[in-house]
Amino acid sequence: MLEPKNHVCRVILLPSGLRGEIPQGTNLLEGARMLGVELESICGGRQTCGKCQIMVEEGSFAKHAVTSIRHHLSPIEGREAAYWERHESKGRRLACAAQVSGDLLVTVPEESQAHKQVIAKAATQRAIEVQPAVRQLYVECDLARLDDPRGDWERLQEAMAKQWGLNGITIDPVLLPGLQPALRDGRGAVTLSLWQDAEVLRIQAGYAEGVYGLAIDVGSTTVAAHLCDLRTGAVLTTEVMMNPQVRFGEDLMSRVSYGMMDPDGVGRMHRAIIQGLNELAEKAALAAGLSAKDILDVVLVGNSVMHHLMLGIDPVELGGAPFALAISGPLDLKARDLGLTAVHVAARVHILPCIAGQNGADNMAVLLATAPHEQDQMMLVVDIGTNAEILLGDRQQVLAASSPTGPAFEGAQITHGQRAAPGAIERTRISPENLELKFKVIGREEWIDESTQAAATGVCGSGIIEAIAEMFLAGIIDRDGRFMEAASQRSWRVRFNGRAGEFVLAKPDQTASKAPIVITQNDVRSVQLAKAALYAGVKLLMRRRRVDRVDRILLAGAFGSFISPQHAMVLGLIPDCDLDKVTAVGNAAGDGARIALLNRKRRSEAAELARQVDYVSIAVEPRFQDEFVAAMALPHAVDPFPHLNQHWPGQLKGQHQGRPRRRFNLVKSI
Amino acid sequence: MLEPKNHVCRVILLPSGLRGEIPQGTNLLEGARMLGVELESICGGRQTCGKCQIMVEEGSFAKHAVTSIRHHLSPIEGREAAYWERHESKGRRLACAAQVSGDLLVTVPEESQAHKQVIAKAATQRAIEVQPAVRQLYVECDLARLDDPRGDWERLQEAMAKQWGLNGITIDPVLLPGLQPALRDGRGAVTLSLWQDAEVLRIQAGYAEGVYGLAIDVGSTTVAAHLCDLRTGAVLTTEVMMNPQVRFGEDLMSRVSYGMMDPDGVGRMHRAIIQGLNELAEKAALAAGLSAKDILDVVLVGNSVMHHLMLGIDPVELGGAPFALAISGPLDLKARDLGLTAVHVAARVHILPCIAGQNGADNMAVLLATAPHEQDQMMLVVDIGTNAEILLGDRQQVLAASSPTGPAFEGAQITHGQRAAPGAIERTRISPENLELKFKVIGREEWIDESTQAAATGVCGSGIIEAIAEMFLAGIIDRDGRFMEAASQRSWRVRFNGRAGEFVLAKPDQTASKAPIVITQNDVRSVQLAKAALYAGVKLLMRRRRVDRVDRILLAGAFGSFISPQHAMVLGLIPDCDLDKVTAVGNAAGDGARIALLNRKRRSEAAELARQVDYVSIAVEPRFQDEFVAAMALPHAVDPFPHLNQHWPGQLKGQHQGRPRRRFNLVKSI
Repeated sequence: MLEPKNHVCRVILLPSGLRGEIPQGTNLLEGARMLGVELESICGGRQTCGKCQIMVEEGSFAKHAVTSIRHHLSPIEGREAAYWERHESKGRRLACAAQVSGDLLVTVPEESQAHKQVIAKAATQRAIEVQPAVRQLYVECDLARLDDPRGDWERLQEAMAKQWGLNGITIDPVLLPGLQPALRDGRGAVTLSLWQDAEVLRIQAGYAEGVYGLAIDVGSTTVAAHLCDLRTGAVLTTEVMMNPQVRFGEDLMSRVSYGMMDPDGVGRMHRAIIQGLNELAEKAALAAGLSAKDILDVVLVGNSVMHHLMLGIDPVELGGAPFALAISGPLDLKARDLGLTAVHVAARVHILPCIAGQNGADNMAVLLATAPHEQDQMMLVVDIGTNAEILLGDRQQVLAASSPTGPAFEGAQITHGQRAAPGAIERTRISPENLELKFKVIGREEWIDESTQAAATGVCGSGIIEAIAEMFLAGIIDRDGRFMEAASQRSWRVRFNGRAGEFVLAKPDQTASKAPIVITQNDVRSVQLAKAALYAGVKLLMRRRRVDRVDRILLAGAFGSFISPQHAMVLGLIPDCDLDKVTAVGNAAGDGARIALLNRKRRSEAAELARQVDYVSIAVEPRFQDEFVAAMALPHAVDPFPHLNQHWPGQLKGQHQGRPRRRFNLVKSI
Repeated sequence: MLEPKNHVCRVILLPSGLRGEIPQGTNLLEGARMLGVELESICGGRQTCGKCQIMVEEGSFAKHAVTSIRHHLSPIEGREAAYWERHESKGRRLACAAQVSGDLLVTVPEESQAHKQVIAKAATQRAIEVQPAVRQLYVECDLARLDDPRGDWERLQEAMAKQWGLNGITIDPVLLPGLQPALRDGRGAVTLSLWQDAEVLRIQAGYAEGVYGLAIDVGSTTVAAHLCDLRTGAVLTTEVMMNPQVRFGEDLMSRVSYGMMDPDGVGRMHRAIIQGLNELAEKAALAAGLSAKDILDVVLVGNSVMHHLMLGIDPVELGGAPFALAISGPLDLKARDLGLTAVHVAARVHILPCIAGQNGADNMAVLLATAPHEQDQMMLVVDIGTNAEILLGDRQQVLAASSPTGPAFEGAQITHGQRAAPGAIERTRISPENLELKFKVIGREEWIDESTQAAATGVCGSGIIEAIAEMFLAGIIDRDGRFMEAASQRSWRVRFNGRAGEFVLAKPDQTASKAPIVITQNDVRSVQLAKAALYAGVKLLMRRRRVDRVDRILLAGAFGSFISPQHAMVLGLIPDCDLDKVTAVGNAAGDGARIALLNRKRRSEAAELARQVDYVSIAVEPRFQDEFVAAMALPHAVDPFPHLNQHWPGQLKGQHQGRPRRRFNLVKSI
C-alpha cells in the first residue's frame, strides 16, 4: 500500500482530471488552487458560505486496500460541523475545512466550480465563462480601537488586502453612510460587492449572497432585458417592452428628425428610454422575486442612434455623412449618472463600443456572440433592419459594414407593407403550375387558400420576401423584376394597369379593409433596391477579403429569424452557401450583451475588437455602384444556385412549422 | 562682436537666471523649457492664448555692440501679429511665436511663469506653488471623416496625446451630449478643463479662459469659502455664513445627539449644510462677477463631525470612545454625488483626510498651512474649540492630539458666558493696586470704566481668559484659583456668598439686563479645568517628543486670534515660549483648504501626512491624569514665566489696538 511520503498527498480532481501532490495538512480549497482548480468561495475559507463543497470518491489510490475516507481528511468539526447541522450534506465536505491527510480522489460538483460556464444561445454555441465584473467578498474587519485613529473604511481596506490580497480598493462615496451600521450589525463582518476588483458597490452586514445583473438590448422598436444571476450565469427572467421612443418616430431617421425639430426632442427621447429601462428593470426583478435594487451591474447595447439617445447625446450627426459618433469606445459609468435609479444606487453600467456610426454597439454585441474572429471558416453575419449590418471574417481579419437597404425589409414604403404584427401576411406559396396561392397571417396557424375566410391587414417584411421570391419562381416576374404580360393570362391575380403590373396577394374578402392586398411593380423595385444594397455590401466585403464564397451565414435579429433562407437566396439577399450552413441566430445582440455581463474579460475583448475590426464605409467604395447595379437582378447575376433544386420545395414546407403566435414573445425564447 | 556659432544661441532667462544654449530657430516657449523654465500656455503654442509673453532685454551679450532686438528673434507676423493688433504689446513677444536667431537676454514676467507662487496667509508664510488639480488645454481636433469610423471623443483623445502628450484621458459621461456641439461651434477647436491630467470636466468651443475653485472651511458655527482663480492663485472673494446646522444644535455634541434622537436628523443636517454650501458657492461667484457653474473644483475641510455630516454619515460613533471615523482618508468625489449642484455639473470635490476621530480634516488643513513638518524648530500649533486640537513637531516627527477642554473657552457653562457677539465683554484690565476695573465690549472701541455707560450682555471666551488672568495678577484669586478673603476688603467687586467668592465684572447699570455680570468661583474652576486639559495635552506631546520647551507657538482659529498671548500664558493655557514667537494665525484651516485647492501635490502630501502624523489618544495615556492635576494651578506648576515682567504691562496695552468691530467680518480678513 502506498502511503504519502515526505508529508505530501496525491490528489486527483474530477471532472478536470488535474492532479498533483499537495502538502499534508493543506485544506482542499487551498490544495485545489495549487493544482489549478479554483473553487467557489464567498467567505474566503471561513467555513461559512458552503460554496466550496466537494465529494471524496476514493480514499486511496492503492489497488489492494480501500481505506476509509475519514482517514484521509481531517474530521468534521467546529464551524463545518455547525454548517452541516443546518444543511443536508449528502456526504459532502467543505473544501476549506477538510485538511488532506492522505491520497484522495475528489469530485468538484459543478456548482462548486469557480468560473462556471454557460452556453450563449447564438449559433456558434460560444461558451461563456462566468466571470462577472461584480463579485461578492466576505470580510472580517477589526473593530475600531482608541489607539488606532484610522477610519473603519481604512481598516476594511486592510482586511481586504490581508484576507483577499486586494489592494487599493475604493468605495463609491454614496455608500459611506451605510458602512458603520453594516460593520456594527455584522460585528465587524461584512459582505462586499466589488466591481472589477477595484470599487465597492455594496456593503451588507455579515454574510450575504446574491449578485444580479441586467443585459439589455435597446432596439429601435423592442427593448429586451435578461436578468442574470451573476454567480451562476443563469438567466432568471427575460422581459421585453416596446421602445417608448416609438411615439417620437417609428424608425431611426424619424427620431433623428424629431431631435432636430423639437428643441427638447433629444431630452424627451432620452428620458423616455431611461424611464422605460427603469420600469423594465423593476419588472424583470419582480418576475424573478427580487428587487431592482439587487441589480448591481447593467450592460447596454443598441444601434448608434439608440446608444446616443441613451446617453442623452443628440444623434443628429448620425443622420448624415460622415455619420460621426460622439464617442465610439466602451463606456463604464454609474447607473445613477444615466438616470437609472431603479437599480442599486451604486450600480454600474457598461456600454459596449460602437464599430462605426452605422455599426453600433448592438453589432458589437452580435460580433461578441457570433465570434467570427474565432472561426477558421469564413463567416458572414447579417443583421437586417433599415440598415443591414454586415460582418465578414475569420480568425485572421473581420470586416464590418453597413448597407443602406432602406426600410423595405421592414414593410415600410411597400404599398400594403406593415410592421410584423397580428394580421400581417408572413408566408406565401404560389404554385408554379397554376399560380394558385396560399398564405399565412401572423396570429393564425393554418394556411389560408382561395376559399378560406381571413382578415389580413397587410404584408410584413418576411412576407414580402417570400411573395416576391415565389412570384419569381412561378414566372410572374422576370429576372429583372418586371411583371410578365404572359402571367396575366394564367391567373386573374396578375393585373396590368397600363405597363405596370401588380399581383393580388389577398382578395377583398380576405382582408380587414375589404380592399385587395397587392404587390405592385414599385414594391418589387423597392425590394430589389434593398436586396441589391445588402448583397452589394456583402460582395464588397468578400472582395476585400478576397474570397468568392462564404462557409457559413448567420442571420441575426428578429427579421433574420423569420425569413426563409431559401427565399432569401432565391431573391439574392445573401450569397451562395450550403443551405444547412445558413442559420438564424435570433437576438444575437442580446446574447452579446449577456456575454459582456457575465464575463468581464469579454468587455476588454470587445474594446480590442472595436479597434481591430476593419470598418468598410460602403458609401465611399468606388465599386459599390457597380456591385449594386449588378445585384438588382433576380437571382443576382453573379452566383448560381446549384443546390436550390435539391432542397425545393420539400424543405420549404418544413420550415414553417412551430411558428410562434406573437412576435414580441418570440424575443423571449431567443 | 560675438555671433552664434554652430547654429546655437545663448539665452539667459530672468528672473530665474537660468541660461544655456538652444538651437537657432527654436521658439522661445520651447527654448525656455529646454533651459528649465516652464511658461504658461493654454493654447499649446498656437499663438492664440497670449499666456507666454516675454520681454527681450538685450539683443546681444557683446560688450561693444548692441544690435537690434529684431535681429535676434524672428519678426512678428501671422497669428502673433493678429494677436498684437488686438492687445497692447508694451514691446512684448509671444514666446511660442518668437524664434531665436541670436543671443538673447529675456525676462519672463510673473504672469507668464507657469507654477506661479502665492503666499499662504498663515504665519509660516508658506509659499503655494499654483499647480491646481484642474487646468485648461486648448486642443485642435481633426473633424470626422467617412473613412474614420472612430467617435469624436476618440479623435479628441488622439489630439490630446499628440498636442499635449496626455494619454488615457477619460471624460465625465455627463459631458458627452455637449461634445459634438462644442467641436462644431469651434470648428474642431475646443478648450478642455482637465482634472488631475486624467478626466475632462468641461468642454468649451474654441479658445476659452477661466478656471475657478472654492476652498471651504466648514466650521461648526461659521462656514468660510474662498473663491480662487485657479490660474493665478488669487482669492477673488471670500464669503462667510453661519453653519445652517446651528439650528439643530449649537455645539458638536448636541448635533451628534440630534442625529441620535431624530430618525431623519442626520439627513436633515446633511441637507442643511449642502444647501448652505450651494448658496455660499452662488454668493461667492456672484460677488466675483462669475457664475457658480464656473466653479470646477472644491476643497472641503471640517472637523470630523462636520466631515461626516457633509458626507451624510451619521456621526454617532464620533460621539464616544473609540471615536471611530467611518473614513479617515482623503476623498475625491463628484460634486453632484454630494448634492453640490450649484457648481459645474462635472465639478470635483476633494476632502482632506482626517487625522483621527477627534482631529479632523480641519486640523489636517491647519497642518498643511502651518507645516510643522517642514520646520527645524519645535513648533506647537493649538486650535481651541470645544476640543483643543494640538500639533507638535518638526521636520522629524509631528504628533497630534485632541484635548477635551470642554466649552468653557467658548463662553458656555460660564455663569454669564456667551458667544463672541456684540455686547460681550472681551477685554478686561484690573489695577493690581486698587482693583479698579475697565473693560471693552465687542462693537465698541473705547474702554469702559466705572463711570462709563454700557449695556454689556455677558462675557465671551477671550474675555473670561483675560478676566481670570487679571484677577490672578491682581491678587483676587490665588494660584489654586480660590477667591481670597483679603481681596473682598480691597474692593466691593469681590463678594462672598458663604465660602464661594465672585467678582463683579460689570455693574447693574453697565449691563443690558440691569443685573451685574460676575465671574464666580465655579467659572474660575471651569476655566481651570479647560486650561488644564489643554496644557496637559500639550505636555503629553512634549514628553512624547522628549522636549521641555517649544520654539514657536501658533494659535489657530478665531479664538486663537482674539485671546491675548500674555494672558494665555499667565493662565497657563500654553507652555513657556518667547512672547514674540507666539503668533495668532487666524483661520489656518481655511488657508490649508486653499493650499490644497491651488496645489494638487499638497493633496498627496496631506494624504501622506495623515498616515505619518502620530496621533496620541490622550484619553488612554496613563500620564494624562497626573499632567491634568498638575496643570490646574495658576500659573501651572511646571514652567516659570521669566519674561512676563519685561512685557508687562506696556505690551498688553498695545495688543488691543485696531480691533475690528464685528466678529464675522474678521474671518474675511484672515
